[in-house]
Amino acid sequence: MNKHYVEQFIKMIENLDHLMTKAAAYADHKKIDVNIFMNERLIVDMLPFARQIQMACDTAKFCVSYLSSTQAPKFEDNELTWTELKNRLVKTNSYLKTMIEADFSNFKNVKISPSWAGGQWLTGEEYFYQMAIPNFYFHTNTAYAILRKAGVEIGKKDFLGNLNFKQP
Amino acid sequence: MNKHYVEQFIKMIENLDHLMTKAAAYADHKKIDVNIFMNERLIVDMLPFARQIQMACDTAKFCVSYLSSTQAPKFEDNELTWTELKNRLVKTNSYLKTMIEADFSNFKNVKISPSWAGGQWLTGEEYFYQMAIPNFYFHTNTAYAILRKAGVEIGKKDFLGNLNFKQP
Repeated sequence: MNKHYVEQFIKMIENLDHLMTKAAAYADHKKIDVNIFMNERLIVDMLPFARQIQMACDTAKFCVSYLSSTQAPKFEDNELTWTELKNRLVKTNSYLKTMIEADFSNFKNVKISPSWAGGQWLTGEEYFYQMAIPNFYFHTNTAYAILRKAGVEIGKKDFLGNLNFKQP
Repeated sequence: MNKHYVEQFIKMIENLDHLMTKAAAYADHKKIDVNIFMNERLIVDMLPFARQIQMACDTAKFCVSYLSSTQAPKFEDNELTWTELKNRLVKTNSYLKTMIEADFSNFKNVKISPSWAGGQWLTGEEYFYQMAIPNFYFHTNTAYAILRKAGVEIGKKDFLGNLNFKQP
């Protein structure tokens, strides 16, 4: 864990905001209520779009909190509208932006015990590489896939965001 | 970049093999040809399952190759069957398993210029955090999402694989 990862979490959360902006434009174009996307799913027994966004935010938030041994702000998972859901992204990034490199100096020595794990634990490195990062991308990409399947005109470039290519 | 990331690529590619095994069992149960999944997509203008697997493999392969400044084996993207596609996973992991920690000692100083980028380049760190990792998870998760939408009984645990939780 290091500042590059915090910066990448922040960037991906900004990319989710960009995907949601494109979905809103698509809804306007189709003359539908953008809030319909809140409950879209790939299949009926999957969590809907709004939960994917909440979980992407929380995965980044808890990763940063656990590995810096600092307290994260609590968010209530009570977003009911597109505007509120976008604000969840903003609130999450406000917290992530408080982190500095030194906050993670001890991350390899931390024991991580997620609240649902009944006291069981992973090392900081196991948690980071095998759980936090894949889980974060699982929810960000599932959110993307739900909008993609729903017809919003987005592609991998929208998911990755700008890349700082330099001229030869 | 470090050995933990190579290990995580290997683990995720093994998880893709596990997902494909579950899809084959589902196809048996439904008495359909498992190769039908090769061309499944979330939506018509998206790359199909087989391409998602090839691209997940290549993203891991090129990441390791570029950042270690070593030559990667070339694979032809000519898999036509489920068995051939699973073998692509095996071949990719055979290459990844040749890497050792010292291979990445210079990764921050490497200039990365993907073959399609016309000579434009990223630093090793920009490429790793902003492109290789999110791209790898983009294709692994899209492969998952295609099977999930198609009805295969898989969940996030199948995507993440085993986690080494220790007792309190």
